[in-house]
Amino acid sequence: MDIIDISTEISEQMIVYPGNPGVKIKTERNANGFAVSELRMGSHTGTHMDAPYHVFRSGRKADGASLEKLYGRCRVLDLTDVKKSIEAEDIRKSRIRKGEIILLKTRNSLLKGEKFRKDFVYIGKSAARLLAESGANAVGVDYLSVERFGAKPESHRILLRKMAVFEGLSLAHVKPGSYIFIGFPIKIDIDAAPVRAVLVKE
Amino acid sequence: MDIIDISTEISEQMIVYPGNPGVKIKTERNANGFAVSELRMGSHTGTHMDAPYHVFRSGRKADGASLEKLYGRCRVLDLTDVKKSIEAEDIRKSRIRKGEIILLKTRNSLLKGEKFRKDFVYIGKSAARLLAESGANAVGVDYLSVERFGAKPESHRILLRKMAVFEGLSLAHVKPGSYIFIGFPIKIDIDAAPVRAVLVKE
Repeated sequence: MDIIDISTEISEQMIVYPGNPGVKIKTERNANGFAVSELRMGSHTGTHMDAPYHVFRSGRKADGASLEKLYGRCRVLDLTDVKKSIEAEDIRKSRIRKGEIILLKTRNSLLKGEKFRKDFVYIGKSAARLLAESGANAVGVDYLSVERFGAKPESHRILLRKMAVFEGLSLAHVKPGSYIFIGFPIKIDIDAAPVRAVLVKE
Repeated sequence: MDIIDISTEISEQMIVYPGNPGVKIKTERNANGFAVSELRMGSHTGTHMDAPYHVFRSGRKADGASLEKLYGRCRVLDLTDVKKSIEAEDIRKSRIRKGEIILLKTRNSLLKGEKFRKDFVYIGKSAARLLAESGANAVGVDYLSVERFGAKPESHRILLRKMAVFEGLSLAHVKPGSYIFIGFPIKIDIDAAPVRAVLVKE
């Protein structure tokens, strides 16, 4: 069994989505010799799962996610040729099936990561609709949002009505293909939660 | 496949180990309708994995853990009769094997959780040595430390030289027996990291 880590390192230097809280870490070693840290971060930092509450006032929070849907058959689709937004025609040929977890590898994975880029590849409304109607359990992307930069939550709303959404995945080293995905968010009653996401190759 | 959540909810009201940072959560919904939170918490809050750096100045940090060792065959041992500390004689009969993940269910799981209790059941040195010599991949406990309250890091050092340590597991609803354990810490370069830990019953 081979476990492939697809999570982004959390650090004070990492990129966060503009307007989101930055990361602060303070570590001290106490008199008994135990090191303990205080961590400040946004709920949408690094690799995380969005909960419906992110875009719906009465939506479920992160701790309400069904864990069964966050562990299972996964495909990483090769969308590295997409220039601007992923649309239905880009993913229709992949015949997405009920219960799958679909990760979209795009040219975002090829960006060198020192600065936030507003021109990241996002999920257009037509692809969001196709995914929502497919019965897939979850979709994941390789940048910090499924939405066009600065836009209102359209693709988020289409997706989060029907499935889990993972953002901030690290897919540069991952070959498109079939895997088992595991991504359980930490248990917290807010709009999103950090996840250590992995792929398992059997 | 049945997934049993064994993680503690993170909230401002939860119990933290005395001297550790408390939890603060601030959620705002922005002009575009996206709710985003800032989270402040200690690295040893709720369900978490200790890294060797917690007790060794040159030890590995949480992001250096071998994920293969945090996913696999697990046994939950019934130690609910132990009064004060788990010792070698309490676990010898369980014949712990190389590669296992061992969770110790004690009377801590029966405590009602409004206040921190200093008299929690901990892992005594003799049991720590037996576990470290067994070749088990990890050990997990149902309170916030493997160490006697207020003590120097003795059991921590014996264990963390050889295996991963999970603390703050929620085992009240778990029947002793065999499972698959999955517990991947969020990826961060500090002394410990939060984990969404689960058991899988096949």
